[in-house]
Amino acid sequence: MNDAYLNFVNSPFGARLAGSLGLPKPEVLRRYHADRPEFEGLVAVGAGPQPRILDALAGMIARTGMTGVAHESAGLWIALAHRHGLMTGRFEPVERGSTQGRMSALLFDATGIEDVTQFDSLYAFFHDALRSLGKCGRIVVFGRPPQGCANPRQWTAQRALEGFTRSLGKEARRGITSNLIYVAPGAEALAETTVRFLLSPRSAYVSGLAVHIDTVTRALPDFDWKRPLAGRRALVTGAARGIGASIAGVLAAEGAHVIGVDIPSAKDALDHTMRELNGTPLAFDIAAPETPAQLAAALDENGIDIIVHNAGITKDKTIAKMTETAWHSVIDINLAAQERIDDALLEAGTLRHGGRIIGVSSISGIAGNPGQSNYATSKAGVIGRVQGMASLLGERQITINAVAPGFIETQMTAKIPFAIREAGRRMNSMSQGGQPVDVAQTIAWLAHPGSAGVTGQVVRVCGQSLIGA
Amino acid sequence: MNDAYLNFVNSPFGARLAGSLGLPKPEVLRRYHADRPEFEGLVAVGAGPQPRILDALAGMIARTGMTGVAHESAGLWIALAHRHGLMTGRFEPVERGSTQGRMSALLFDATGIEDVTQFDSLYAFFHDALRSLGKCGRIVVFGRPPQGCANPRQWTAQRALEGFTRSLGKEARRGITSNLIYVAPGAEALAETTVRFLLSPRSAYVSGLAVHIDTVTRALPDFDWKRPLAGRRALVTGAARGIGASIAGVLAAEGAHVIGVDIPSAKDALDHTMRELNGTPLAFDIAAPETPAQLAAALDENGIDIIVHNAGITKDKTIAKMTETAWHSVIDINLAAQERIDDALLEAGTLRHGGRIIGVSSISGIAGNPGQSNYATSKAGVIGRVQGMASLLGERQITINAVAPGFIETQMTAKIPFAIREAGRRMNSMSQGGQPVDVAQTIAWLAHPGSAGVTGQVVRVCGQSLIGA
Repeated sequence: MNDAYLNFVNSPFGARLAGSLGLPKPEVLRRYHADRPEFEGLVAVGAGPQPRILDALAGMIARTGMTGVAHESAGLWIALAHRHGLMTGRFEPVERGSTQGRMSALLFDATGIEDVTQFDSLYAFFHDALRSLGKCGRIVVFGRPPQGCANPRQWTAQRALEGFTRSLGKEARRGITSNLIYVAPGAEALAETTVRFLLSPRSAYVSGLAVHIDTVTRALPDFDWKRPLAGRRALVTGAARGIGASIAGVLAAEGAHVIGVDIPSAKDALDHTMRELNGTPLAFDIAAPETPAQLAAALDENGIDIIVHNAGITKDKTIAKMTETAWHSVIDINLAAQERIDDALLEAGTLRHGGRIIGVSSISGIAGNPGQSNYATSKAGVIGRVQGMASLLGERQITINAVAPGFIETQMTAKIPFAIREAGRRMNSMSQGGQPVDVAQTIAWLAHPGSAGVTGQVVRVCGQSLIGA
Repeated sequence: MNDAYLNFVNSPFGARLAGSLGLPKPEVLRRYHADRPEFEGLVAVGAGPQPRILDALAGMIARTGMTGVAHESAGLWIALAHRHGLMTGRFEPVERGSTQGRMSALLFDATGIEDVTQFDSLYAFFHDALRSLGKCGRIVVFGRPPQGCANPRQWTAQRALEGFTRSLGKEARRGITSNLIYVAPGAEALAETTVRFLLSPRSAYVSGLAVHIDTVTRALPDFDWKRPLAGRRALVTGAARGIGASIAGVLAAEGAHVIGVDIPSAKDALDHTMRELNGTPLAFDIAAPETPAQLAAALDENGIDIIVHNAGITKDKTIAKMTETAWHSVIDINLAAQERIDDALLEAGTLRHGGRIIGVSSISGIAGNPGQSNYATSKAGVIGRVQGMASLLGERQITINAVAPGFIETQMTAKIPFAIREAGRRMNSMSQGGQPVDVAQTIAWLAHPGSAGVTGQVVRVCGQSLIGA
């Protein structure tokens, strides 16, 4: 397999095709480890006119322990940094071949931009600073949600930022991620979990996002940044193995008590996974009609704070060859079971006020996929659930979001035919597949009590896959 | 070039990679010609429970002159077809190798689906019928706009249709397009221009869409299906050559008087193009500050009904190498000039009540593109304009939409380096680049007086490109 790839990218035609698809030189991505510093190094800060989030940002950067340096476009930063007790200085470009440390992140506050004629500092900052960003560095641009803008010109300028950050993600390479956070006016303090996630090695495989942070009607609960899920109970379906086990592991590491669900035939693996995490195994078939009521009964006494609908199956065939059973079982397990379980847990009040629902969608659900009409339908339906339920659940301060994994290295993807697997691995800004932990860490961010401003959203975990709609 | 491609797809590794990317066997797409029938052959009709658009659809199909046959899921069709004086019968699958004519289109009415447990007939219809669809056939699924659904389950089911139609588009191949039309309750009659466009060879390179048809507050004007733009005046920027000249040509063929704008240095080409169309050339530099007022003055006497913002430039470089001039000129010409011109024409009342604004965006504006941070920003901004202005303009019954071309064969794309060009051409469900006329026909649909229910939308013209966000 490696030889075929190597031979191909070293042939004249292959080298040209590979170059254009971004196949070569995948970077070893830096990922989160509990025994290594999560945040370190220098952050360069730039800003457009009237930057509205710089003050909150200075506080957030101070709490991470990183040092912020100000590009000339962000003169205000120095004073704000001093006020937050943050080390600071002027941004100086890092020369090629310099021994000086490169930047860990580039942050740009575009919240005050009201018109596309005000983009000059956006260009100037990234023109000056992008080459100074180190491997696996982070680009985060802050804007205002377009649909909340006062007039079409502001809306246009804010929406234009999506094209900008996605282009930077595609040209930066070297394991660098590029994301956009739209922070609603008044929601600045709610952005902190999102800023931290996107600056952290936890978001190694998350690039090209436009995350919206909205205001919420209640104050955030207190939490411990080191163990934000302490005291919380998380239900994870399909938890015995693979991505589900990784989700369970990350949520447990963040302090949650995990209740892992999987089918009775996976009971041994489930018991093993849960034992390692001090979790609770529940061997239920989520497709069984009696399961929602049984789950509600099993969870009733202590309630639950987080539901992760991870369980899912594939039964790929073109529609002409697909059996009715293959169609029905994929829709039922991947989508209808989520509906039945959530309805039961919400009706019984088992999912607590301030809870979190996270569905697992897929790039296939966004873009469709040949031979996966059943799977893509179910995963597009997961997107529909998130969009359709967010405002209703908001009344109980419950958020609902989905993650949409791209190509993730699992036992399932290991069985994909070579060429499709290889294409899926390379056709993204990281030139590689993601790891189950990348999905799990993204879910942990959404499950965080501080992520109350993030709801109704679909978060791609795809290394900025080329594939989309 | 062709040899390298042929050699590659015939090598063992190349054949496998090519197969997975959909490189082989591009179909010669059937396109619209005035001297050939636009609609012909058999349409198979399927339906879910309580289909709400079948009645309107029977009328539309009758007016095209096609014949509709009913799948067992759409038993109601026979009676409706009779009422509309439409030839009809029962759908029979076409056997492989049969001399019997294949279907021209498969239509499915999913408007009544309220829950994902009601998808069985969706599966059954396409399972039975997809193989009977001929080359360059059409798939159209009808649903209800998710955001207007009464409850989350209905929203989920309706939203799930996107994953389904996109998957079918990707697996059908053979020049077949697959699109979804979300028709708001009460807007059934407004869907006709969209249904016709998506059934017509005019939409040869349009696949994977989810178009929304909303109700409008005024009755549609009368129009002639043969020359729907008769009596209308259309301003087209960048009209001298390429896509702009094609847009001008199609709008003129539909009956519009075209006022073509291009820069003074392209005056000869512009004059030539306009002479052929009995149009009016206006040699203006859209970037010049005085142009909006001059345009408004030049158009004032007769007003204008349609504005197509087609003029655009590229100045590609990575952000670190991009000059400030390259940044600024691309944003200014591709985006800010549109704002200045529209503002002037709207303020002066030059764009008439019931008018149409169509901006040209790009897949780069959706997904970002390396080396195009300026261009992608400008094209994402075009999306922002459309979304930000639609409700304001709705007060004057003016619609605003954008087209987002993928890889279109032009003099500009002919200069793209080989491998990038080749990848762009093949990485879509048609395995080929589109033609300028594909963009032009899509714009003509949006410019149609009957397309009043389509506004605030971004329509990809990309052969269902893999690339997206």
